[in-house]
Parts: sequence; C-alpha cells; structure tokens
Amino acid sequence: MNASAIRITEVGPRDGLQNEAAAISVDDKVAFINLLSASGVAEVEASSFVSGKWVPQLGDAEEVFQRIDRSSGVVFSALVPNEKGLERALSLGHKRPDKIAVFTAASETFSRKNTNASIGETLQRFKPVIAQCKAEALPIRAYVSCVVACPYDGPIDPARVRDVIARLLDLGIDVTRDDIDLGETIGVAVPTDIERLYDAIGDVLPPQRSTLHLHDTRGTALACAYRAIQLGVASFDASCAGLGGCPYAPGAAGNLATEDLVYLCEQMGTTTGVKLDALFNAGRHVSRLLGRTLPGRVFCADGG
Amino acid sequence: MNASAIRITEVGPRDGLQNEAAAISVDDKVAFINLLSASGVAEVEASSFVSGKWVPQLGDAEEVFQRIDRSSGVVFSALVPNEKGLERALSLGHKRPDKIAVFTAASETFSRKNTNASIGETLQRFKPVIAQCKAEALPIRAYVSCVVACPYDGPIDPARVRDVIARLLDLGIDVTRDDIDLGETIGVAVPTDIERLYDAIGDVLPPQRSTLHLHDTRGTALACAYRAIQLGVASFDASCAGLGGCPYAPGAAGNLATEDLVYLCEQMGTTTGVKLDALFNAGRHVSRLLGRTLPGRVFCADGG
Repeated sequence: MNASAIRITEVGPRDGLQNEAAAISVDDKVAFINLLSASGVAEVEASSFVSGKWVPQLGDAEEVFQRIDRSSGVVFSALVPNEKGLERALSLGHKRPDKIAVFTAASETFSRKNTNASIGETLQRFKPVIAQCKAEALPIRAYVSCVVACPYDGPIDPARVRDVIARLLDLGIDVTRDDIDLGETIGVAVPTDIERLYDAIGDVLPPQRSTLHLHDTRGTALACAYRAIQLGVASFDASCAGLGGCPYAPGAAGNLATEDLVYLCEQMGTTTGVKLDALFNAGRHVSRLLGRTLPGRVFCADGG
Repeated sequence: MNASAIRITEVGPRDGLQNEAAAISVDDKVAFINLLSASGVAEVEASSFVSGKWVPQLGDAEEVFQRIDRSSGVVFSALVPNEKGLERALSLGHKRPDKIAVFTAASETFSRKNTNASIGETLQRFKPVIAQCKAEALPIRAYVSCVVACPYDGPIDPARVRDVIARLLDLGIDVTRDDIDLGETIGVAVPTDIERLYDAIGDVLPPQRSTLHLHDTRGTALACAYRAIQLGVASFDASCAGLGGCPYAPGAAGNLATEDLVYLCEQMGTTTGVKLDALFNAGRHVSRLLGRTLPGRVFCADGG
C-alpha cells in the first residue's frame, strides 16, 4: 500500500528561518545548510529570492547560494516570487538553484493577504517563470498553500484545491519532473482531512506524485503524514527540529519536524536516507543560533 | 471500521503528577481534579495509594478522595500497589475510588526495577486484591506496562504481552467490567508497533476491549492513537496538557496530551464527550502550579 521510501525536502532554512525573529549571519546559514545536506535529505530549500524589504531574514539569498557546499548531490531549491526573483536566481550561473519554487494558494483571501494578488494573478505571474525554467531545464516546485484551511476563511473545499492543481497542470507543470507541493499552512488538519483532500484531487494529482507540507501546530502533523503514507504519498516537506514556530509563543510548533518524520518512517521500515545523528548536528547548530529550545519531539528527546 | 465514540481516562493527577518534581497542595490537586472532571472525560485516575515514602507527590491520596467533587458521574480510579493500598482505599467508605488500578509489566527487568518483584510475583499480589474488589463489586483496571519496549531491555515481543494478558484473564480480570490497560511506557512506538501488538494479542484481548496508554516522547503518540482507532481501539489514557514529561528536560513530552487526542477525534467526527475549553481551564491551573509551560500542542496553540 505505502511506499518503501520517502523523499524528504528540508525547508528549515527557508520556511523555518523566515518565521524566526533572529537575524542569522550568512556564515551561520551556510553552516546550517551544509549540516542539513550532510544528513541525507533529498532536497533543501535553501532560501528565497524575495525582496529583503519584505523578508529581511532571507535578503542574502545570492550569497547563501554562492557559498553552500554543492558537492553532496542534494537538490537545492529556492523560492522566487516573480520574474525578477527568477532573474536574481539565474544570475548566479552554475551556482544557481537546482529547482525553482513558486507559490500560490487555494484560498483567495490568503493569496491576497500573502502575495497581494488573487489566485488567478499569481498563476498569471507563473507563466513567464515556468516558460523560462523550461527553457533553462530547471524543474519547478509549485506550492499550493491552505489546502485544508485558511487562517482567514477557515475550512477550504478540496474541490478548490483540485481546481488550482488543474490550472497549474494547464500552465505546463509536469509532475514527472516538477513538484506540486500541498501546504497545510496553519496546522489544523487531522487524518480525515488528508483523506478528503486526496479523494478530491486524485484524478488530477495522484498521491504518489504529490508532496505534502504539514505544520505541527496542534500535534497532528505526524498522524496526517502517517495517513498520507497509507494513501501512497511518498514526498514530504519537513523542518529541522520543527524550526519555524512562532518565536513569541514558547513551545509552539512550526513545520512538521524532520526528525519526527524520519523516526516514524525508519521505525516502520520505510527508508528516508536521513541519518538522525547527522540531522541532530544541524538542529543543535540552529538552536544555538536562535538561543532557544526547538519544538521537535525527537530532537528534544534524543538530539538536544 | 473505527468506533464512533472514544472513552478518555485522564491520568494527569496520577501518572502526570507523580513524574513532576513540584510539591502540589491538596487544595490545588482537588481543584485540578474538579476542573478535569468538569471537562467531560469519562474517568479520572485521581491518585495512588502507594507509600508516600516512595512517591511523595501522591502521599495524600486519602485526603484527595475525601475532598474531590463526586457529583459529576465521572469514574474516579486509584492505583493500589498491594493489599495494604487497597485497605487504605476501602477505608474511605463511600468516598472510596470507583475503580482500583493494579500494575504489572510485560518486561521482567522493568517489573523488578519498578516494583521490586517479578511479573509472576506482581500477578500473585493481584490475587487477593482482585478477590476483594470482586467482593466489593469494584471494577479493576490492570495496567500492563512496556507493551512495545522496555527502558532497560529494549523491544518487547508482543507474544510476552499476550502471555501477561492471558494470565490476567486467568486471575479473573473480566474485560466486560474491568480494563486491561496497555502502557507504551517510554514513548518509542510507531503505528506498525501498534499493529503488531494487536495482531499478537487479538485472540485474548480484542482492540475494542482494550485501553491504550501512550507517551509522546518522540511525537508519535497521536499517530499511534490514530492507528489504534483504525484497528478498533476505543479507550485511551491521556494527560491534561501532556503533563508528566521530565521537568529537567525543557520541552520534553509526557503522556499523550488529552487535548491533542480530543482535537484529533472531534475533528474526525469521533465524539469524546470532552469540551476543550473546559479542559484548557484545568491545563492553565496545573501549568500555573508547576510554574512551567506544558508540552501539549493543542494546549500551547489554543489554550495556554
């Protein structure tokens, strides 16, 4: 029923750090990313070519990509908000990202508040980005956020997620090469939500071809990941030690912690390629940088 | 496949507080237990009639039982280590516990270290306790700890758990009236461990008749609970706000947090009878008493 191997994309350096208040130096980010890629994850989302005016934590994307160790075979992706971001990424030449991530939502309100554009407008912005990525033979990772619920509008009808996926496919996203990454942005999902989601989208995006991005706000992320694995999902985003929780709420969880997902999978006999001891080194490094305990359970129990 | 209703036994006042370093006054314990029973849980394990020499946190069991509000219809249980403990419980007359909990293990080493007796000796000690409970028409809750792994011996063969359950049934434990409560004591289980456990014991104890007691040390408790619900388990222990983590390890999780289990079930359309807002009152009370953040995810996100 379920895959014998799970592919993990480590999103701590991008989705994690962009939600942290602390300023981290380029040296420290590069060291963090190198430790992550040494752990055996398949992919690391290393930064975002968004304006430093909007996300000051990630204003150093060029320097990060110039300096990280690329010898490991790990795929390094970067988020780009628009053509300008893609130009910055491509200007890095052979140090450019291996994959380009773009961002839309299944919630109209979230899309407008988060990107100042309707869903339709974000998809229009993708067109030239997708065309140029294809010309450059760069694979794409298309995020669809709010696939279960929106912080403003509440529950999201899975049929709307299906609609956005169908439009991404129409735009040329090719899931044999590109990723469609389904974001449960606010951490409210339970396993039945994951069932309903994959039931509704299965004819346009089979579980085996999707990536799932979970947040552990209410402790349900791992149960949802387990249900997704039962349904055939074999690709997940996760964040080292659960990085990315709100720094103003002690104990608040962020992304699904990579260590928790790796522990679950490996103990069930499903390989991830990740060595927990190596990942703990990355978690200890970033925990020291942020000067706080991170929420990942396995990290706290065995790695902290 | 799964039950439409889940029965929750709140074990925070006993399994939670006995692992906390702070001394809590009887007044505060009584207030905590009253808040818990007002939340709608089916049962509260309120204390233990163990010697105060061994577990000083629970040396006030008589006073607690004399003073808690019994008008709610909640079942109040207490752990007794032996006949002497049962005598103390029974001496309370109409204020005695509604149910008597006894304790053994599926690990010989754990049994010896924890109770200074072999598994066989603990079962021998049960004989007079069970006989007297039957004479008094008091239901019994028989804990079997280390059902997946032992902190000293590592993984436990599920066949050994089956053997202990069979011996409990031989001693007169009657699962139409009594509970057999399977404790995953150290928080290492993943869903496949839960499958293997119920596969091995199904002929002596069907999932529908068992209670499962999980610890969230590695973040896997809710995924295990979900798998157990899929298999038909309908009775769980849980601890308010995840009380019972090691107080010396910030962020370390204790028992499966009641709020997390309630949230999962209710969002899946499975009723628990528990009102989260009422449970948050209990969590805030005990968090203030202990002077620390508690690890339950839903409590941190929505109730803290």
